[in-house]
Amino acid sequence: MNTFGQLFRLTTFGESHGAAIGGVIDGCPAGLKLDVNKVQQELDRRKPGQSALTTQRKESDTVEFLSGVFEGVTTGAPIGFIIRNEDQKTKDYSDIKEAYRPSHADFTYDSKYDLRDYRGGGRSSARETANWVVAGAIAKQLLAEVRINAFVSSVGEEFVRKPYQELDFSKIETNAVRCPDEEAASRMIALIEQTKAEGDSLGGTVTCVAQGVSVGLGEPVFDKLHAQLGKAMLSINAVKGFEYGSGFCGAKMKGSKHNDSFMEGGKTQTNLSGGIQGGISNGMDIYFRVAFKPTATIMQKQNTINQAGEAIQLEAKGRHDPCVVPRAVPVVEAMTALVLADFYLLNKNARL
Amino acid sequence: MNTFGQLFRLTTFGESHGAAIGGVIDGCPAGLKLDVNKVQQELDRRKPGQSALTTQRKESDTVEFLSGVFEGVTTGAPIGFIIRNEDQKTKDYSDIKEAYRPSHADFTYDSKYDLRDYRGGGRSSARETANWVVAGAIAKQLLAEVRINAFVSSVGEEFVRKPYQELDFSKIETNAVRCPDEEAASRMIALIEQTKAEGDSLGGTVTCVAQGVSVGLGEPVFDKLHAQLGKAMLSINAVKGFEYGSGFCGAKMKGSKHNDSFMEGGKTQTNLSGGIQGGISNGMDIYFRVAFKPTATIMQKQNTINQAGEAIQLEAKGRHDPCVVPRAVPVVEAMTALVLADFYLLNKNARL
Amino acid sequence: MNTFGQLFRLTTFGESHGAAIGGVIDGCPAGLKLDVNKVQQELDRRKPGQSALTTQRKESDTVEFLSGVFEGVTTGAPIGFIIRNEDQKTKDYSDIKEAYRPSHADFTYDSKYDLRDYRGGGRSSARETANWVVAGAIAKQLLAEVRINAFVSSVGEEFVRKPYQELDFSKIETNAVRCPDEEAASRMIALIEQTKAEGDSLGGTVTCVAQGVSVGLGEPVFDKLHAQLGKAMLSINAVKGFEYGSGFCGAKMKGSKHNDSFMEGGKTQTNLSGGIQGGISNGMDIYFRVAFKPTATIMQKQNTINQAGEAIQLEAKGRHDPCVVPRAVPVVEAMTALVLADFYLLNKNARL
Amino acid sequence: MNTFGQLFRLTTFGESHGAAIGGVIDGCPAGLKLDVNKVQQELDRRKPGQSALTTQRKESDTVEFLSGVFEGVTTGAPIGFIIRNEDQKTKDYSDIKEAYRPSHADFTYDSKYDLRDYRGGGRSSARETANWVVAGAIAKQLLAEVRINAFVSSVGEEFVRKPYQELDFSKIETNAVRCPDEEAASRMIALIEQTKAEGDSLGGTVTCVAQGVSVGLGEPVFDKLHAQLGKAMLSINAVKGFEYGSGFCGAKMKGSKHNDSFMEGGKTQTNLSGGIQGGISNGMDIYFRVAFKPTATIMQKQNTINQAGEAIQLEAKGRHDPCVVPRAVPVVEAMTALVLADFYLLNKNARL
Repeated sequence: MNTFGQLFRLTTFGESHGAAIGGVIDGCPAGLKLDVNKVQQELDRRKPGQSALTTQRKESDTVEFLSGVFEGVTTGAPIGFIIRNEDQKTKDYSDIKEAYRPSHADFTYDSKYDLRDYRGGGRSSARETANWVVAGAIAKQLLAEVRINAFVSSVGEEFVRKPYQELDFSKIETNAVRCPDEEAASRMIALIEQTKAEGDSLGGTVTCVAQGVSVGLGEPVFDKLHAQLGKAMLSINAVKGFEYGSGFCGAKMKGSKHNDSFMEGGKTQTNLSGGIQGGISNGMDIYFRVAFKPTATIMQKQNTINQAGEAIQLEAKGRHDPCVVPRAVPVVEAMTALVLADFYLLNKNARL
Repeated sequence: MNTFGQLFRLTTFGESHGAAIGGVIDGCPAGLKLDVNKVQQELDRRKPGQSALTTQRKESDTVEFLSGVFEGVTTGAPIGFIIRNEDQKTKDYSDIKEAYRPSHADFTYDSKYDLRDYRGGGRSSARETANWVVAGAIAKQLLAEVRINAFVSSVGEEFVRKPYQELDFSKIETNAVRCPDEEAASRMIALIEQTKAEGDSLGGTVTCVAQGVSVGLGEPVFDKLHAQLGKAMLSINAVKGFEYGSGFCGAKMKGSKHNDSFMEGGKTQTNLSGGIQGGISNGMDIYFRVAFKPTATIMQKQNTINQAGEAIQLEAKGRHDPCVVPRAVPVVEAMTALVLADFYLLNKNARL
Repeated sequence: MNTFGQLFRLTTFGESHGAAIGGVIDGCPAGLKLDVNKVQQELDRRKPGQSALTTQRKESDTVEFLSGVFEGVTTGAPIGFIIRNEDQKTKDYSDIKEAYRPSHADFTYDSKYDLRDYRGGGRSSARETANWVVAGAIAKQLLAEVRINAFVSSVGEEFVRKPYQELDFSKIETNAVRCPDEEAASRMIALIEQTKAEGDSLGGTVTCVAQGVSVGLGEPVFDKLHAQLGKAMLSINAVKGFEYGSGFCGAKMKGSKHNDSFMEGGKTQTNLSGGIQGGISNGMDIYFRVAFKPTATIMQKQNTINQAGEAIQLEAKGRHDPCVVPRAVPVVEAMTALVLADFYLLNKNARL
Repeated sequence: MNTFGQLFRLTTFGESHGAAIGGVIDGCPAGLKLDVNKVQQELDRRKPGQSALTTQRKESDTVEFLSGVFEGVTTGAPIGFIIRNEDQKTKDYSDIKEAYRPSHADFTYDSKYDLRDYRGGGRSSARETANWVVAGAIAKQLLAEVRINAFVSSVGEEFVRKPYQELDFSKIETNAVRCPDEEAASRMIALIEQTKAEGDSLGGTVTCVAQGVSVGLGEPVFDKLHAQLGKAMLSINAVKGFEYGSGFCGAKMKGSKHNDSFMEGGKTQTNLSGGIQGGISNGMDIYFRVAFKPTATIMQKQNTINQAGEAIQLEAKGRHDPCVVPRAVPVVEAMTALVLADFYLLNKNARL
């Protein structure tokens, strides 16, 4: 249940306020020259405190590799790693210890396990996604020829009005919202700042494009490439929806408009299929969109109940992201890389 | 790769034009009184030829159970079953044998496996979903207290304008499009008939509501309840998107509007969470929406290529669904039941 | 729980007295030319009624393939198959319906499942191994360069006195006990006939040798090649022990005698390692020995209890094998092939 | 491949000479009061340097828990842990860097992965079993009512001459060979000392008895209780064989002597079945025997080859165990506990 993947496999552990989080990456083939700096760079993209838009919590999020790499090269043995939790304040949790925060997992965890690590979300904290970013960064290195670019395509009602083909992915990291369209980025930033001032929060969407994926990845029935991508994205905290290719818009179209005609060579004229047909990559760009709900923690008084079932009022304190979507960008990329790496290995046995 | 589920587990086989399709349902606890008629009824909901709107292919789709049930009760042993393929015409496939039909899986299968069962889609045929309906019908019986209702919520641009709470699910089976809103159903039927006359096809959406699900189903990290539901839905042929609760709309909302306040007793005032918080069911209705693309097979001339990579023109013959969405309704329900049954069993070990 | 293997994967179903047994072979690469006759030949080696030494029950055990093979070649899709149960007499089971036969699984099944298919053993019947032989026969064809030979190395106190290197495997099928040493075979046959006349039963051992296995199969820690072979063998009905290479004798030796010195080229001078070092095949012969207990069903009066816990006496009727070991030979080979095929596929990803 | 178990699941990592070894224990139910001292005590039983008979390498082997336990109780979240490697001398490995030590995994690792962590065995080191002991110690606490006792039943040609029923398990830890029969222990110790003086090594056997196991653990076909126990034992370094109940002796017996008659109440008069019938525990003592080969590292000159395939001579230096069997005792117990815990959880869903 804490393992993702079949051949390229990540198993994780850790709570936001324990000693460390970490994991085991199993199934990475031997012989991969691992650039550890690139792994740390991906982690730095995810860490809190990167801009005024995100939480001011400071954690250096340094990954420590414990095994599976020898003289800079993977050995085929499992890669164990940990990330120490540095910012464990012995703070007072009495306000949330017994409260069920609206749209958090407090109530469901308590119901399921009959106890709960009330310090900051425990296992349900998005801090867990730092583990995924580590594993995803290794998967990216395994898939040297694949280019995975995710970006924020909307925040609240503000969105990018161009198709992804007109965007310059090299600009994604140039602004605090990770949106390659500068004009849209400005609108998003203004909206986030205003919402933050109101003590409120915002949702948004991330679009991801994977280019250079070879033909044949994905399995025909239960492990369709897009089904596994969907599961991966829906595993990310706060995600409410996933669509690929034409997505929900495709449901309104007619077949004569939706079908992607093949051109000589095997490319298709249009790509409403989103690079996947019958669950298997066809060599065209794979693209999909992920919907994130607004952060549940807001700086406003809310009605809720406590463990005893009594009505109480709750007001969040501390440091929180008014919009998590920009920080989700490296997580979306990491999960995409994990899915592709797994299918890349599986596909080695598709035929004799 | 042809197995779904961890404890309540379905493994399937079969191509549309082979001798039979079938599967093995493993992990069903002993002691369940199995109503085989109800299983057949679910299959009958899925079979072709039910109305003028769907393909006229006639298959009786009779399930034959081979094991795992003794004197009407499950024994804990795996339940093997087959469904014979009856309508195997020794027809002429020469038109599609070498052609890559647009937005079908012909090209990707050929690329992946270096060969392809060209008779009617082989393993990529939606006929496979009959297996899922068999297993789902058993999962439904295991989850006696859960009510799962799926219905067509849109066809092309026509959609149901009411929230699901205002619909009468007992009307779902009263019309050919499986839409409980009679007025919307009429619009949808008219649209399908018109589109069929044009030789074109339509997509649409299915909404599914699961009620009576106990609190605690789903796992916190990689096997979140909605992530597994999403994967299940995205496994269904022609699906392009999945959203639950507030879904893509939620991405446009602010936290102060989106949060579901708890009321005394643990119910929430609103349910934008869609019955799931932190990946775990909270006892409220679980609801989600699934987007289907228009059927790829249309009765119009299309440009494409053949196996040699040469440009050709292709025109479908035979019997096809102009809109598969109504027939997908029992499939959506079946996959929902499989996911819930699996988590129901897994949850037995959440705590001592 | 009814699935064996990770990439080359067999899922089975069926009881001895139901309509059919069968299974799904998933993960066989596309492009394998399948010789169906060879599969049937392996099944024929296992079937009852082959000689006066074994049960006189007559079943033709004909395998029917339902999917996954097209024009004689595997397609990469799952291979479904069934074997109909022909000899389902509507006989009277009242004698064993409520009795717990000594050293059978009646008591444990009843305790675990609270019910039991009392007709002939249900799921615990060795008839299940026919499924394994089908899958193993396909695995053998996948491993074209590997030669797997199992034979009876002892029956009761009678045993083969030569090392396997001095035996001619082509003689295994020339006698009813499947022992390539003719002199030992005669002793074994005489012992079985005498024991049968006494209404008693015998155990024995099967030795298996796999030759031509490439270097590198097996995983270092939990999926050591010999650990998986051991599990496979211990899954066979009536097996009580497994040893490979020097086995239990090796436990009495000193390191200076037991170590296999490497010779130039990588072969070893001796092979007490049994072809496996650190869980991974080293290119030498893999050999192991499997211990089978005497058949639990004997033609003598035995003391036991019934479901109510009352003391009763029981005497078996009907047709039973006084010694199952000769019929286990193809089953041992099949399970060996399944293990090797799985590791063969897994090993494709050991390194870049 | 580095994961053991289905519901109670251990995933491990680490090499003997890396920064740390460790693992993730997933699936432990919430609500278990964890006695961390008992875990450390089990680790101390396994660690090197306990007596003059074993290696003098000193490692404190201190387990550090990182997650999954809150206020002394398991939370249902994965339990991450590490054990730092303390005794990492920057010693000179040039003697073994290119040599293939006889009956070690050097050759097979190099062949499989095309590279190898040559410092002390890497992943093939028995140091990995410290991880198993940690997880097993938690499994033991989960199975509060089960008593698992393993002991050394033979070293080389010296063995315990009494059946286990006549032994006092409380004496196991009273001598350096972990043999509860004092007289046999003396013979074993003398043999080990003499063999050590010769620079040679010894194998032996460990017998394990699990008492108080409830009826019903184990699955009928591929996950028979004894098959999984066999796999677990064969995963331990240096193991060459496994037998349970009557084992290889049973293969020489007749059915009339081997069958265990049921007595009123469901107990059996004899227990040649070893507490397991049809793969499922029957409530009687579960007992089995595990064969260990002599340590491959000996203090004598040996002929072998180097990576280039050239003949060389090799003589081990440093600190090695002349007989690993006493240190294997807690490992055998740990793996037994892991298997039983997994089946205990699986069995919750055997019936409604």
